[in-house]
Amino acid sequence: MKTFYDCIPCFLRQALDAARLATSDETIHERVLHEALRVAAEMDLRQSPPAMAQQIHRAIREWTGKNDPYLEIKNRFNSMALELYPVMQGWMADSDQPLETAMRLAIAGNVIDLGVKTRLKEGEVRESILNAMSAPLEGDIGEFTSAVRRADEILYLADNAGEIVFDRLLIEQLKPAKVIVAVRGFPIINDATLEDAKEAGIDAVADVMENGSDAPGTILRDCNESFCDCFNRADLVIAKGQGNYETLSEESRDIFFLLKVKCPVVAKHTGCQEGTMLLTRTAI
Amino acid sequence: MKTFYDCIPCFLRQALDAARLATSDETIHERVLHEALRVAAEMDLRQSPPAMAQQIHRAIREWTGKNDPYLEIKNRFNSMALELYPVMQGWMADSDQPLETAMRLAIAGNVIDLGVKTRLKEGEVRESILNAMSAPLEGDIGEFTSAVRRADEILYLADNAGEIVFDRLLIEQLKPAKVIVAVRGFPIINDATLEDAKEAGIDAVADVMENGSDAPGTILRDCNESFCDCFNRADLVIAKGQGNYETLSEESRDIFFLLKVKCPVVAKHTGCQEGTMLLTRTAI
Repeated sequence: MKTFYDCIPCFLRQALDAARLATSDETIHERVLHEALRVAAEMDLRQSPPAMAQQIHRAIREWTGKNDPYLEIKNRFNSMALELYPVMQGWMADSDQPLETAMRLAIAGNVIDLGVKTRLKEGEVRESILNAMSAPLEGDIGEFTSAVRRADEILYLADNAGEIVFDRLLIEQLKPAKVIVAVRGFPIINDATLEDAKEAGIDAVADVMENGSDAPGTILRDCNESFCDCFNRADLVIAKGQGNYETLSEESRDIFFLLKVKCPVVAKHTGCQEGTMLLTRTAI
Repeated sequence: MKTFYDCIPCFLRQALDAARLATSDETIHERVLHEALRVAAEMDLRQSPPAMAQQIHRAIREWTGKNDPYLEIKNRFNSMALELYPVMQGWMADSDQPLETAMRLAIAGNVIDLGVKTRLKEGEVRESILNAMSAPLEGDIGEFTSAVRRADEILYLADNAGEIVFDRLLIEQLKPAKVIVAVRGFPIINDATLEDAKEAGIDAVADVMENGSDAPGTILRDCNESFCDCFNRADLVIAKGQGNYETLSEESRDIFFLLKVKCPVVAKHTGCQEGTMLLTRTAI
């Protein structure tokens, strides 16, 4: 997906949020904002939004000297999700359709996206989870179920910290396929890294790999060789969240995307209302 | 009030909104966005947000050839407010405290601010009006009442189209003082102009003057002489909305501001939550 004009104000807001998380030094906030304006003015709109965000967040790290401004927030949402986990395990145990229930919970967890909304409240996550069981899920669940059942090897592209705890419920339902969970190679916004995957216990239920990139999405030319091999080899790719959708929606292999639609640009691109729980796939 | 970093993403969003209202030509949308990025990168943050918006909207008018992109929206909100007017007149007739009731309705009408929110729905205006009677009104109403009762000549700085219909209820309560209502000199966003004042019937209850400026606020050095004379001469100045607050809050004369707090920057500057109905005054 290309970058739309509406993404530009959002990048600037995100840059300012990240700069403030990294430092209280206002001169650095101003430098970051000016750098973001410069990047925005020179950008190539044919790039995806995460490619642009990648550039801006690199500048923020360089100028603030903070490698991971969202670390505290990531830890907070991991803890929160782990507290909710036993409750959700109970729902899973009671479910007649555990794959669908797990899909719904994994999509509900995608609300934990600090790129879209920095001041996300824990209550909003709880609300998303509570609504997940009854809210409409757009997409062909039967098609997804068949693809899962046919696959011997599934590559699961994680999205955010906290959210990855919810992903674990779905990953467990993908068996007997061998599941490989890919996380970002470096900290970027609140995207899940290897530490978050371990914190969520993903390594107990699947193989975990880093994709080698610091983009808040999956830019294949930026990922390491072992990730790309796995991406090309897997029978099925499941990609979580807007960042992975924005970077992979036009790829020429079959990918199922699971996401909560959280901004007007993705809403328009997918043809869904904001707030929609969405299962969609590449048009191949 | 100076421009804060958080205003920048908001200006860009506003520029894009205005460009889209003015034309469907995407090449112009891109030019406007780039011009807005350039203005933002070179801006002097000591200027108020309306001074910056003034520059951006001038560029939009020049490039689109549209002098008044918000005309249709202004007419729509004028009509809507005029439809609600008889209901509100009924509330005024039933009120034991007509000055406070009129203040509340005038502040509620300040929700019609397309600079803050382009896709404002008519239902949101109705909700604002319905809540206006019971929601807390921050500020010293007694102080305001005394100032009104002491004044022989009151200058009332209108804010937006549609909203100016609600202002009429308050203007009628300011008698027996002579009231002069000032509107913008040229179309800017959805701010009220002479046409809107006439549409609202303000000319039947007060004198109406244009301030000579195309800023979405009151930048005194940009206003015409007769406006400045009146501003200096009036016993009392009442200023509606965020734009007038942002441009006049540090003036060295007594001004009462009536507004609905609608953005995080004004919320922080006034020390109020977003959504607050606020009466405040210059610190002199």
